[in-house]
This record gives sequence, structure tokens and C-alpha cells, in this order.
Amino acid sequence: GFGIASLNEEDYTWVLSRLAIEILEMPKEYEKFTIQTWVENVYKLFTDRNFVILNQNGKEVGYARSIWAMINMKDRKPANLLELHGDEIENYILNKSCPIDKPSRIKVEATNPTEILTAKYCDIDINGHVNSIRYIEHILDLFPKSLYESKRIKRFEMAYVAESYYGDQLFFYQNEIEDNHYNIEIKKDNQDTVCRSKVIFK
Amino acid sequence: GFGIASLNEEDYTWVLSRLAIEILEMPKEYEKFTIQTWVENVYKLFTDRNFVILNQNGKEVGYARSIWAMINMKDRKPANLLELHGDEIENYILNKSCPIDKPSRIKVEATNPTEILTAKYCDIDINGHVNSIRYIEHILDLFPKSLYESKRIKRFEMAYVAESYYGDQLFFYQNEIEDNHYNIEIKKDNQDTVCRSKVIFK
Repeated sequence: GFGIASLNEEDYTWVLSRLAIEILEMPKEYEKFTIQTWVENVYKLFTDRNFVILNQNGKEVGYARSIWAMINMKDRKPANLLELHGDEIENYILNKSCPIDKPSRIKVEATNPTEILTAKYCDIDINGHVNSIRYIEHILDLFPKSLYESKRIKRFEMAYVAESYYGDQLFFYQNEIEDNHYNIEIKKDNQDTVCRSKVIFK
Repeated sequence: GFGIASLNEEDYTWVLSRLAIEILEMPKEYEKFTIQTWVENVYKLFTDRNFVILNQNGKEVGYARSIWAMINMKDRKPANLLELHGDEIENYILNKSCPIDKPSRIKVEATNPTEILTAKYCDIDINGHVNSIRYIEHILDLFPKSLYESKRIKRFEMAYVAESYYGDQLFFYQNEIEDNHYNIEIKKDNQDTVCRSKVIFK
């Protein structure tokens, strides 16, 4: 199978490359919601996994697109998805589209960082890397509370480029490329790009 | 009832005052565990709620003690627990002890802060306060990764004293009162105490 537990036994693991999320309506407190997920495409080095969020009435209230690679944990090299388990992965493809745009190319031109943080203990996950969710939290923390009070996030994108580690200094570069539309880039020790993000408020 | 949803309808809510946790063995990845909880005591202004963590074989692997007050959300004043719903709360008391020490008095004498942080968007909870778990994360972040690699936390205590808000500057004062035994105090804007913590590594 392609689940993480059985993959780990074979020294392979999934690595998240890109993410795009759009939420139309947030579930209320105590409201039950459902998440459905499916594989839309499989390429040699990447696979597209989509998500839909349904509210308690079965209405579609949010979508996500994600792009994953599989790597060998010993040499960190990407696996050829089409050759693994003799093509078996293609059986998982569902011919169903996702109504939100694919993750885009994100370009950041800011030359002065708006924030500099050091990766600390609670940022680090079981693999010794800064956790993917923590980058998102640090990016959300760049915006003032007043912005969240007058608007909400319509679309959020992440492109995970490289790993960062405990003690790394993370430099946050931020462009408002148009009204309520921000591009952000994180560089470790002010050099290599760790990730890029797009945040659109509405 | 005394559940948070029905209390909120009556404009009351529970407020966490103190917490002490001791974990003897951490559950393994994918291991199921169970948490049991009971009320040990009810006083006029506080109630003691204890917890035990059981591993998948039913062995007790951790304990927690917590102390809660109930406040009126309109005037923030504490409620008299013994008078609410005509003494009904006493019916919930279970005559069962908890094998770990009660939360202690925590004294911090350091005069220079070891860390200064600003409360950011992701620190804030639905009530507009810095989230209780975030204080714990910021305290855990005070210790170097090397300490976690050679030791683990044997006992963790928190005393929540006052609330802090978005934009507050949090000053962290830290004493190693004996080997591997740290007392920490957080003051907002370097004045009022927000919380105190004790962390014992072993």
C-alpha cells in the first residue's frame, strides 16, 4: 500500500510540496463537518491529492489541493511514483476535478525582512525539521489582528521548498502585491529559500 | 449541568487556575491510550479535577491534577460553587486520590528576563486571551534541544494568574533552583504576573 506506515517500512515517505486552501464558510462551534479526499493525478515525481470539506448538511464549504512527492528516507532522493508497486498507484486516481485554482508560482521581491525568528523546540517535528503547520502559523502571525477582524482569508497557498532545523534563523520577506493579496518568502539564515506562501484576504 | 456549553448559556464559564502533570511513560506512535478524569474536591471558589492516562494495556502511565474556578462572564467575578444549582456539584465528587503531588507555590527570583516575546495572532484564543497551551509552548521553547535529547520532563506545573492579550510583551524570568529543576514566571509588559511554571527534567 501507499499509506505512511507501510511506506516507512520500505524506507519511503511522503513529502508535502504544495498546498492551496479555499474556505467559503467556516464550520460553526460544535458543528460536525466531513473531509473527503482523492487522488486526481499521478506523475513520475509528484501526485495531486485534493480535498473537499462538507458541512453537516453535506454542502461543500471548502476545498484544498495538495501536491506530494515520495522520497527514500535513506538518500532523500525522490521515488518514481509510476514504477512503484508496478504501476499500482494509478488505480487510486479518481476522475474528479477540484473547483479551486492550482497552486501558483509565488514571487517575492521584498529586499528587507519584515520578521526574523529563530526555530525553537516547539517548531520542530519528529523528523527534526520545522513542522509544516508552524510555518503557516508564523506566516499568519505576520498580519495584524485588525486585518483578521475586518476580513478573513479567502485563499492560502504554501510551496515547501527546503527543510529548516532547530536554531535556524528564519527571515520573512513580504510583498503586498495588490490590495489584500500578500506574497511571503521564508529564507533560512537569510540565504536558501525554505518556503513561499500566498495569502489572499477578502 | 456543569458542562461548558450549558454553563455558557447561563453566562458562566470554567477558568483553569493550576495544572500539574507527570508522565511516567509516553505512549508510542500509533498506540491507543485512554484518559480518565474525576472531581476530587469542591470548595467555595475552586474545584480539583484529576486525570489518569492509561496505556493500551490499561497500565497507568501518567497523571494530572488541575484546579478550576468558575466565573461569571459578564462581571468576571468568581461564582460560589457550593451554591450553584443547589449544591448539585458535590454529587460529582469521587473519593479517589491522585498519586502525584498537588501544584506547589512557585517562586521566581531572577531579575533579568531570559526571553521577551510579543503575543501574536496565533497565540490568541476565541476569548481574545493568549491561549493556555501557548504559554506552555513558549515555556518549553526556553530550554535547548540538547536538554530534551538527554532528559525528559518528569513533572510540569502551571499557575495561571492573569490574562494577557494580543500585542502584550511577555517577559520570561527563569531560575534553575536546583539541578534540572526550573521555575519560570511570565510578566506582561514587564509588570503584572501572567503565570508561573515549574519544569523538572530527569
